[in-house]
Amino acid sequence: VALAGYGVFSAAGEPARVGARRGEEVLDLGAAAPPPQRALLESPSLNPLMAAGPEAWAAVAAIEDAPAHALAAVELHLPFAVADYVDFYSSLHHATNAGRMFRPGGDPLPPNWRHLPIGYHGRAGTVVPSGSAIVRPHGQLGPGEYGATRRLDVELELGFVIGAPSRRGEPVPIERALDHVFGVVLLNDWSARDIQGWETVPLGPFLGKSFATSIGHWVVPVDALDRTAREPQDPTPLAYLREEPWAFDIALELDICGTVVARTNARELYWSAAQQIAHLTVNGASLRTGDLLGSGTISGPGRHERGSLLELSWNGTEPLALDDGSTRTFLEDGDEVVLRGDGLGEVRGRIEPALA
Amino acid sequence: VALAGYGVFSAAGEPARVGARRGEEVLDLGAAAPPPQRALLESPSLNPLMAAGPEAWAAVAAIEDAPAHALAAVELHLPFAVADYVDFYSSLHHATNAGRMFRPGGDPLPPNWRHLPIGYHGRAGTVVPSGSAIVRPHGQLGPGEYGATRRLDVELELGFVIGAPSRRGEPVPIERALDHVFGVVLLNDWSARDIQGWETVPLGPFLGKSFATSIGHWVVPVDALDRTAREPQDPTPLAYLREEPWAFDIALELDICGTVVARTNARELYWSAAQQIAHLTVNGASLRTGDLLGSGTISGPGRHERGSLLELSWNGTEPLALDDGSTRTFLEDGDEVVLRGDGLGEVRGRIEPALA
Repeated sequence: VALAGYGVFSAAGEPARVGARRGEEVLDLGAAAPPPQRALLESPSLNPLMAAGPEAWAAVAAIEDAPAHALAAVELHLPFAVADYVDFYSSLHHATNAGRMFRPGGDPLPPNWRHLPIGYHGRAGTVVPSGSAIVRPHGQLGPGEYGATRRLDVELELGFVIGAPSRRGEPVPIERALDHVFGVVLLNDWSARDIQGWETVPLGPFLGKSFATSIGHWVVPVDALDRTAREPQDPTPLAYLREEPWAFDIALELDICGTVVARTNARELYWSAAQQIAHLTVNGASLRTGDLLGSGTISGPGRHERGSLLELSWNGTEPLALDDGSTRTFLEDGDEVVLRGDGLGEVRGRIEPALA
Repeated sequence: VALAGYGVFSAAGEPARVGARRGEEVLDLGAAAPPPQRALLESPSLNPLMAAGPEAWAAVAAIEDAPAHALAAVELHLPFAVADYVDFYSSLHHATNAGRMFRPGGDPLPPNWRHLPIGYHGRAGTVVPSGSAIVRPHGQLGPGEYGATRRLDVELELGFVIGAPSRRGEPVPIERALDHVFGVVLLNDWSARDIQGWETVPLGPFLGKSFATSIGHWVVPVDALDRTAREPQDPTPLAYLREEPWAFDIALELDICGTVVARTNARELYWSAAQQIAHLTVNGASLRTGDLLGSGTISGPGRHERGSLLELSWNGTEPLALDDGSTRTFLEDGDEVVLRGDGLGEVRGRIEPALA
């Protein structure tokens, strides 16, 4: 799949506006759009276009002869203003690995895992675009223990971006869930495992995640991405979650300092984006334009198919070798992390030292 | 303390704008403001004023001779657009009660409780103003079990509203934390205990809370509210959380269908608003204008000082008597819930039946 997403760019001295990526160029769609679409495109975020719904999206996709800028000559921005950010936990192998590490001896999956797509709300205000520096966060590492995290990690995820809103009190039926999705981005859910471990019982992750979440510059329409069938879910989900099992079929990789340490695929997601949306709204919660739904870390069954260092180094006990001869358990200052997805581009971040 | 908060109102046929409450009147501040402040006040949300910071707040507080509308003659709106919503868990008696019910036999407090103000992110998009109908939510109540919640509850809380933002990567020192707070609202963190119980391990509350959170119409400046000293915390908190112990001193009550079933006070909060803000930002997470920080349910030591039905009915085992002769464990359809706070006004919500 050629990369063909929407983003926000600015050419030298010009205000930020919507663009479409085509290879190594950015198309200035607003310059070629008729007036009804032009107002949606001369905006410093995708939100007006996203809110306008599928008919407007189709009209914008049909724009021809837009002037092109070289990608290298423009500045790229956060593509949309994030409303609520929810992070799911929808990869069977990731959840199983976490359970084996932190609850050894028992069933690695929580009792609810196969009944519902587990999720929680994250911090929308610290979602940043690819290329933003990630400063190693401070926090409580254990009882009375304070300092910079020693277990800084990545999580390789997809992000589903809500375009068309829904109304409070009206659950979104699963068969219409994807109508609300404007597109898909790559997402890195940076995690400080020591902070997370100490804070997380009983109310879940908080400061171990909230310092930063990076997303790609390009939001790619759902229809541009391949899908595949999945095996039936066991147990059969409740009616509001029932559909023909499917997943996106997107090859993904995790690169640390030039070494690809993991290759996985979005088809490893047990719960689909449609199931996540049906679940999120079943209690009447509304969707807003700009809501961002993280898929959860995507891990496959193999040793080198895991989407986090927590899993790749088995909680720090099995260091990974990089091509430069060094090893990693968790991230070191100066490390450059790149997530790549077929048709989705990349999301990049470099670790800067903790503040003094 | 007389009620003297800021909110958003519309008089018949006029656009919504900022007003100040004085007794049973709403003052149209924009009509009497000089141009620099007028633009902040002729807005359908408090956010521009909140973002302008303490000097602008002082200038607005000094406006005299503003025309008044009768409160009964205007429509009141959500006072501000919520950026991120965080809910804390800062009342010792509430956390202790929850621990006694759900982890009997062990230490009722989680090991981290006295070391940090536990919190998690909630859904900003479903924060609604006082008076909004609360439809009984559907959801998963247990393995394979779906239906309308049977354990619909309230949580009596304060909400701290962020005005002046902070920068990502720059923790807010505790001694300057309150400079970022525009004011305080009453907050009802509606909760569906059966949905919450089944979903909550391992990532925390999600759909059991996300259907609605109600806030009062009036955001009251911090300086208008009484404070009191508290006993020293044990153990002494880490340096970034250390201050002279204090709490707001605000009498609070929970009214169900005309019966005041609980009276408590904001001084029961073990962790202060300043400590919550210092903690929230210690990892470099930024504050945005419109961030809403819930205090957590406020419960005192007594049987009738508990801020939720979960505690008042001891997980449904001890029904409460109402003045009309009926009893309650959790909320029934048609119930009208009113939280009141001295100087803060009220937040009101009525339970409507679940959708068919």
